[in-house]
Amino acid sequence: MQNMTTIHDVAALAGVSVSSVSNVLNQRTDKLSADTFARVEAAILKLGYQPNRVARQLKTGHTPMLGLLVPSTANPMYGQIALKIEAAARAQFSYRLLLGNTHRDKRQEAGMFDDLLSFGVRSVIVVSSQDDERHLEAAVQRGLTVVSYDRQTTEDGDSRVDHVSPDNFQAGYIAAAHLIEHGHRRLAFLVPSGKTISRTAKIEGFRERAAQEGAQVSATVIEGPVLETFGDSELADLGFAMAADLAAMTPRPTGVVTVNDMLAMGLMSGLIQAGLRVPEDISVVGMDGLSIAAFSNPSLTSVAMPLTEMADIMVQRAVERSRDPQLPAVNLVFHPMLISRHSVARPGADKRA
Amino acid sequence: MQNMTTIHDVAALAGVSVSSVSNVLNQRTDKLSADTFARVEAAILKLGYQPNRVARQLKTGHTPMLGLLVPSTANPMYGQIALKIEAAARAQFSYRLLLGNTHRDKRQEAGMFDDLLSFGVRSVIVVSSQDDERHLEAAVQRGLTVVSYDRQTTEDGDSRVDHVSPDNFQAGYIAAAHLIEHGHRRLAFLVPSGKTISRTAKIEGFRERAAQEGAQVSATVIEGPVLETFGDSELADLGFAMAADLAAMTPRPTGVVTVNDMLAMGLMSGLIQAGLRVPEDISVVGMDGLSIAAFSNPSLTSVAMPLTEMADIMVQRAVERSRDPQLPAVNLVFHPMLISRHSVARPGADKRA
Repeated sequence: MQNMTTIHDVAALAGVSVSSVSNVLNQRTDKLSADTFARVEAAILKLGYQPNRVARQLKTGHTPMLGLLVPSTANPMYGQIALKIEAAARAQFSYRLLLGNTHRDKRQEAGMFDDLLSFGVRSVIVVSSQDDERHLEAAVQRGLTVVSYDRQTTEDGDSRVDHVSPDNFQAGYIAAAHLIEHGHRRLAFLVPSGKTISRTAKIEGFRERAAQEGAQVSATVIEGPVLETFGDSELADLGFAMAADLAAMTPRPTGVVTVNDMLAMGLMSGLIQAGLRVPEDISVVGMDGLSIAAFSNPSLTSVAMPLTEMADIMVQRAVERSRDPQLPAVNLVFHPMLISRHSVARPGADKRA
Repeated sequence: MQNMTTIHDVAALAGVSVSSVSNVLNQRTDKLSADTFARVEAAILKLGYQPNRVARQLKTGHTPMLGLLVPSTANPMYGQIALKIEAAARAQFSYRLLLGNTHRDKRQEAGMFDDLLSFGVRSVIVVSSQDDERHLEAAVQRGLTVVSYDRQTTEDGDSRVDHVSPDNFQAGYIAAAHLIEHGHRRLAFLVPSGKTISRTAKIEGFRERAAQEGAQVSATVIEGPVLETFGDSELADLGFAMAADLAAMTPRPTGVVTVNDMLAMGLMSGLIQAGLRVPEDISVVGMDGLSIAAFSNPSLTSVAMPLTEMADIMVQRAVERSRDPQLPAVNLVFHPMLISRHSVARPGADKRA
């Protein structure tokens, strides 16, 4: 059904100026009286008016929206990141956010890039930290400004993609240091199967800190089973499942670092289920700084990433570079910070064993 | 920068057929050899080819995508719902999902409707359960097919919006019944400030079940403080804050129902912090069936909503009615189901008080 109603028809029926109608359409409601607003809405409804944005978009070539692609919104960490990015986009540029799940699948990421481009969206932030970023570079080629979260640029250095990341090596290092300072000598690092740049960096940091203690400290990396069912949406289930294996190890590690907080929450639940106490029998350090992990029992000690600061800079880069494509891409690394709660104690299992 | 490269140029450079290029563009990769795929990608990259979807969309008038608007992805429940809807959209129609946060703000919802329409998206699922749905009806007027989640149609019955909802009255009823069956006589229902249709229905069901016991059972509704800071993104914080007030009540309720699981997780953490035991001193029943609540300590008993079934039907309604607008809108109600875990026991506080 073709609709030929114009903004002038709406203004005439509502008995207001065209700019008032425009204010309603663009949500600039602070400039309007409630009465004007109601009259314009009634007129829009009555006439079935639909602003022709597709045509406008063809003319101006962009839409005031930011895209955000995450592995899975079932991990609340990505929901939390989305909220920070949304707040930054609104505050800095009055942009809205469009969110998509990609399940770390390059084809899905590439497909979403096409969708966003076709919508006139010019800026996208991608959380994936995959080894291969050629599809990101290809999206830049087609006109998108891309910010990659959670990994640093690879060495060649001529990337046209911005990289904003916590220092994941340092995160692993800090987590191991915290356990060692509490007297732990048998450490383990728990991670789902499947390599990403950020996971690898965290493991390297963890190993580096343990190695500084020489033979005194052992550091084992335990990878989850390769199963379709343990993706980003089932991290807590994976942690729960891995707890049984951990509990059965001899000698058993006394201090465990998990690659993210959801894994830690499932792990703690599984350890308690297996009859172990956290932190008295096994101490657990998560990574992320996930809100809900503050409310677990015991509350989770975690290496938090400075999300607000990173969200601010990612939004700024994504939008400003879309306006000035000559700006060079940057590689920004932020310091993580340990939040000490109640899931770490001095090892007690040794005494009772 | 105008780009006049066509699909024929890409095919010629790659040395493949136009339909092979089309297969790559449409992610029909199962029909392609890895070599063909790589050559087409290289050619697309080299030529900077960008399929002109905006023009195609103007011609066909629709985009194979589904919109989903939720209050806040910081509540993992909405992340979980999004994943179910995404899976259903892919399985049933090969549609992709676009997700937006609206913070239960009608203007933001209306703004997202405009965006989706301008993108050629014709189907949207809205989670908000607000009293007033005029902006949903207005979106239908403009050509969107709208499915409203978590509330039923209001009485007038001539809505052009589909309504799919769990039976929230029944959810409240089941939760109260579970506590009463465990011997609880002093019940409380915890809810954030701010009425929604679904919250009101849950409270009514809770009260109805308690009333059936006559004067034997008391049922208090405790509303959270009216604060900007306790929105859908801070539900666990709110539950934690409300625990102190609950702990200080005399006589103190022994069985508590929370309007959602995030509130319950914060509440349990706050009660434990206040020196109370869950479930020995206070039993807690959540609502949602949130995955992570299975891993709390104690694990949370909750009234779960049949998300998979509801997601399937919502997607089906949203897309099929966009293809045949003559289909009447429906009102579908699904039965919730209690998941019994470890946060409910017979009241013990009375004996020790």
